[in-house]
Amino acid sequence: MYDTMNMITNTILGMTSGASITSVLSTASVNETMSVVQDYGADIANSLLVTNNVWMMVATFLVFIMHLGFAGVEAGFGQAKNTVNILFKNTLTPIIGILTYYILGFNLMYPGFAEDSSGWFGFAGFFLESGSTADVSVGYADGGYTYWTDFLFQAMFAATAATIVSGAVAERIKLSSYLIFTVIFVGIVYPLIGSWKWGGGALDMMGFYDFAGSTLVHSVGGWGALAGVIILGPRLGKYVDGKVVDKPGSSVPLAVIGVFLLWLGWFGFNGGSVLSADPGLTSFVLVTTCLAASAGGLGGFIAAYFMFKRLDLGMVLNGILAGLVGITAGADVIEPPMAIVVGLIAGFLVVISAVTLDKLKLDDVVGAISVHLTCGVWGTLAVGIFSTNPDHSFGAQLIGVAVAGAMAFVSAFIIFYVLKMISGIRVSEQHEKEGLDSHEHGIRGYTIIYE
Amino acid sequence: MYDTMNMITNTILGMTSGASITSVLSTASVNETMSVVQDYGADIANSLLVTNNVWMMVATFLVFIMHLGFAGVEAGFGQAKNTVNILFKNTLTPIIGILTYYILGFNLMYPGFAEDSSGWFGFAGFFLESGSTADVSVGYADGGYTYWTDFLFQAMFAATAATIVSGAVAERIKLSSYLIFTVIFVGIVYPLIGSWKWGGGALDMMGFYDFAGSTLVHSVGGWGALAGVIILGPRLGKYVDGKVVDKPGSSVPLAVIGVFLLWLGWFGFNGGSVLSADPGLTSFVLVTTCLAASAGGLGGFIAAYFMFKRLDLGMVLNGILAGLVGITAGADVIEPPMAIVVGLIAGFLVVISAVTLDKLKLDDVVGAISVHLTCGVWGTLAVGIFSTNPDHSFGAQLIGVAVAGAMAFVSAFIIFYVLKMISGIRVSEQHEKEGLDSHEHGIRGYTIIYE
Amino acid sequence: MYDTMNMITNTILGMTSGASITSVLSTASVNETMSVVQDYGADIANSLLVTNNVWMMVATFLVFIMHLGFAGVEAGFGQAKNTVNILFKNTLTPIIGILTYYILGFNLMYPGFAEDSSGWFGFAGFFLESGSTADVSVGYADGGYTYWTDFLFQAMFAATAATIVSGAVAERIKLSSYLIFTVIFVGIVYPLIGSWKWGGGALDMMGFYDFAGSTLVHSVGGWGALAGVIILGPRLGKYVDGKVVDKPGSSVPLAVIGVFLLWLGWFGFNGGSVLSADPGLTSFVLVTTCLAASAGGLGGFIAAYFMFKRLDLGMVLNGILAGLVGITAGADVIEPPMAIVVGLIAGFLVVISAVTLDKLKLDDVVGAISVHLTCGVWGTLAVGIFSTNPDHSFGAQLIGVAVAGAMAFVSAFIIFYVLKMISGIRVSEQHEKEGLDSHEHGIRGYTIIYE
Repeated sequence: MYDTMNMITNTILGMTSGASITSVLSTASVNETMSVVQDYGADIANSLLVTNNVWMMVATFLVFIMHLGFAGVEAGFGQAKNTVNILFKNTLTPIIGILTYYILGFNLMYPGFAEDSSGWFGFAGFFLESGSTADVSVGYADGGYTYWTDFLFQAMFAATAATIVSGAVAERIKLSSYLIFTVIFVGIVYPLIGSWKWGGGALDMMGFYDFAGSTLVHSVGGWGALAGVIILGPRLGKYVDGKVVDKPGSSVPLAVIGVFLLWLGWFGFNGGSVLSADPGLTSFVLVTTCLAASAGGLGGFIAAYFMFKRLDLGMVLNGILAGLVGITAGADVIEPPMAIVVGLIAGFLVVISAVTLDKLKLDDVVGAISVHLTCGVWGTLAVGIFSTNPDHSFGAQLIGVAVAGAMAFVSAFIIFYVLKMISGIRVSEQHEKEGLDSHEHGIRGYTIIYE
Repeated sequence: MYDTMNMITNTILGMTSGASITSVLSTASVNETMSVVQDYGADIANSLLVTNNVWMMVATFLVFIMHLGFAGVEAGFGQAKNTVNILFKNTLTPIIGILTYYILGFNLMYPGFAEDSSGWFGFAGFFLESGSTADVSVGYADGGYTYWTDFLFQAMFAATAATIVSGAVAERIKLSSYLIFTVIFVGIVYPLIGSWKWGGGALDMMGFYDFAGSTLVHSVGGWGALAGVIILGPRLGKYVDGKVVDKPGSSVPLAVIGVFLLWLGWFGFNGGSVLSADPGLTSFVLVTTCLAASAGGLGGFIAAYFMFKRLDLGMVLNGILAGLVGITAGADVIEPPMAIVVGLIAGFLVVISAVTLDKLKLDDVVGAISVHLTCGVWGTLAVGIFSTNPDHSFGAQLIGVAVAGAMAFVSAFIIFYVLKMISGIRVSEQHEKEGLDSHEHGIRGYTIIYE
Repeated sequence: MYDTMNMITNTILGMTSGASITSVLSTASVNETMSVVQDYGADIANSLLVTNNVWMMVATFLVFIMHLGFAGVEAGFGQAKNTVNILFKNTLTPIIGILTYYILGFNLMYPGFAEDSSGWFGFAGFFLESGSTADVSVGYADGGYTYWTDFLFQAMFAATAATIVSGAVAERIKLSSYLIFTVIFVGIVYPLIGSWKWGGGALDMMGFYDFAGSTLVHSVGGWGALAGVIILGPRLGKYVDGKVVDKPGSSVPLAVIGVFLLWLGWFGFNGGSVLSADPGLTSFVLVTTCLAASAGGLGGFIAAYFMFKRLDLGMVLNGILAGLVGITAGADVIEPPMAIVVGLIAGFLVVISAVTLDKLKLDDVVGAISVHLTCGVWGTLAVGIFSTNPDHSFGAQLIGVAVAGAMAFVSAFIIFYVLKMISGIRVSEQHEKEGLDSHEHGIRGYTIIYE
């Protein structure tokens, strides 16, 4: 027993005197280790927040540059006598979009509907939260990003809906009417419809899916464009004796710059719509987006070649945009081979749609309705056909298209109609013939004269 | 007692034989755990460094693209007969800026003033550190970013100061004189003034605040432009019989491309000036920057409409730039609603300033003085008015504006004056009339001829 | 002994009853801590993956925008009567590049050669992996990035090789022949040569080094351009009575936009070729890239000034591109001062090369051969001279240049020759004189007419 006692005693003394064991057993050191480990946990979460936020800021920049892309496409495809007017609209549009979204749009689109509430309208108040509360990083899913980034990314989106309208109604709309329309459409109509899905409202509850906005952004803008074109009527001399008269754009290089910038920007539009820097999902979305754009360009090329027997650059460019609009609703749930199919079909559709609109004497200067409405609808329905997510259904997609479309078209129609009644929305015949630039702005878009 | 002994024995044997306990108590395993935890600490710090560095590189790209933005604005607003000359200047300017900043500017701007030294001049030697020492990542605050990124981000800034001058003195300055001016102004004057605040020198000690350079970059460039315009005199035929003669720019679309690229670039200019990817602060800065730009554009639109009764795209564009310059000094300390106020006032000021300069027969081709000097001063003072940081004072801001302005203006004046004495700084009357392109470059900017 | 017993008993009881000690010794708490620590390990690795992936996606965007850069340079330097044709090629080229790389190029370039196999040909099958396996993030070195990002970054590279050819053969090549050439060159020739080095094939085994593709991308494209120019012959009226006739480009601003976008894009081309966001290496590469570009522009400026006594903007622009191509092979292993030397020499070489080609009546519309072939070879050899890595040798570089060059030139020559035999590769004399736009496309690039 004495031996046993000695063994026990030695063991215990060995334990308590042994340096390494002591260090574990000392309360201070244990707590310290635990605390360091906990701090690391916070640091890691913070690290993911930082990276997500960087990604979302990059995406925001890319969506911002889409506004220059739209300006390029519209000024490039528009006639030289109206270049300044078009650019004026395209410069004011993001300004109006950002400011109205700051004032009310953001809180109208994300009103914080109650869970399972099937909301149709909500409003979280004017302006943003004040710095003292909002400056602190607010976490969304999986690391999150900040409140400020959230606002700015969404604000960049908002203005695109109005820009889409701008291209269609160019060369004849009165600037003041366009600006008033834009304030209302971007400030109220767009965020209201957006709230139904992205704000967690009624369409979201119905199972409608629209990843980055084939419907909520593009077809909403496209419906607005259609309403505008119907109320405005075609440009003078566009449809003569049953024939469509070409109105050559001022600068094809400018249109090409615009389309490439839009393609670039779409990487942020779709890539940022993941709402985190999740590596698998963001890069998957970029691949489907890029393949659909390429296939769309190819589709536009092929369709135009067979329909017009011409190497039609305009249709290649619009085909690229068509492919991008088409994949936008399902960029995260459509496999690459099917993304090519979606893009290719969008490329065909944009050509067919453009021809059809001309037959109906609906004069769309840059093809905005064919790109954003026709292919926005197509892309939304394509989710119902090709989605890898079994929860997505063609029926729900159709409902979403119809509900958002009805609201967007009717709202835009009413706004344009009221403006027409009150102050007119079309410039005088003389101004339209001579060009809007010399009358409304007093300068020319290009002054390339050598003395 | 035997029971007690048994209990003790069993407890100890249980402890030493129990697998989980043993694993904790074994020295190797404990050390391993501690070591893993420590490695994670280093990994987490590294992870933040990596992300900061990515953000700062992105910001560097954005500031780089501002040089294309300036080229677009200047070539767009300049006359077609001088397009190549303007673009030549705008292409050489970043080249000179980057190379001189590499040779001496960086070490002149960040000389490593001793703590609390109130330094006015310091120089850390020519060129960068060699790769063997510098290739290792050097940490700045909170994770840091690398030495190389630090250099490149700052190098991109440096050249902007000279570019600002370039726009004002265009269409009549002799190219050789401009290039020599640029070497001295970017290589020495800009970094010297910068060292007083960002290098931790005397202005920094006085409590002067300039977040991203309303004064240190923009008004410094603006003062240089003012000196140049005074010494050069107006373009031939600009002021005739007390009237201001319009000299139409070659391409409004080009100017619009330029302004949008500058807006985009400013996200990096201000966002990168946080000097880390701190999510709250970077995204806050982007929001104030973007709101001020929008409000500036709106302010330019409104002011021009009331002063000229015209929808003046040029003033909307310069208003955007004015808003951006205005918010630059305080983008991190001015709340969003006040950022809008700062931008809106900047938009008004840019129009008033342009009119005033024309009255003084100070001929600034692109409005660079109004944008960068007037609004640079306004933005710096606005920090004294709107800053959320109680340490910032109107007095300190005024001192900073005056000290930096005096140095920039006097230096630029002396350089231009000496150049004028030695070799002349203005092209011949014939060259100016016929355009600089055919004489200095032998080609035209645009050759849009169809045979 | 009883005292001893008491001491022991108290110690043990103290141990087992002490709160802090107990918490360490409890199996559950220990396991939990270990598990948390292990999770953090995974989170940290994931965090690095996320950041790497963000960086590689940004790099992908930048390489994408190079296609707009090439479009700008080529349309800007090309004659106005061929603008649409040039832009058509430049729009279709990335479309073809991305789609063929998706179909087969990626798996031809990265066939998974066996270790130490010295492979010359391998093919990992058509299309990409399906989503179910590939959607999961796949790790490469040090944190890695995803399979999708890997594909897209490389796809953006692929199309550049063909774009290089496009600029040289512009204004006279039949569009259908160019498109067929592009499909084969980008789909097969480029990835095959790439596999020899980047795919881990034979050239890699021989010690050849090409960081981002001075040889594998630029000289491969340059050799293709040379073959095309030889087979096509010069434009009508380019070389008359032993003199070189200037064919003024349509828009210098467009060329400047193109070069700045290429410079911007190169930050992604080289920066992304690090294949991770490694902060030291990525930022080092950006610095050498930027310094070489600047030095190249300066070199082109100086060389043209002494050779032509002219301030030659075209040579400054091509000098910038020359510097960029020159540093591409060794951007990660050449110190900043030597990067300036490499760029400066590239700037000289591009001027000498352009003059030499004109003497040989090799008509290259935009100087693509001088920029990409001459300076691609120079840059690759420069690694053998200036590399900080002692494993790099001039001999191995020379072998790489020769092997890749032989394959690229012979392949391109055969493709063009066969196309010439089958269907002709040159447009009719009348079409060339009147411009390709009116004949092949039915529209003009610029319509700047005021009624």
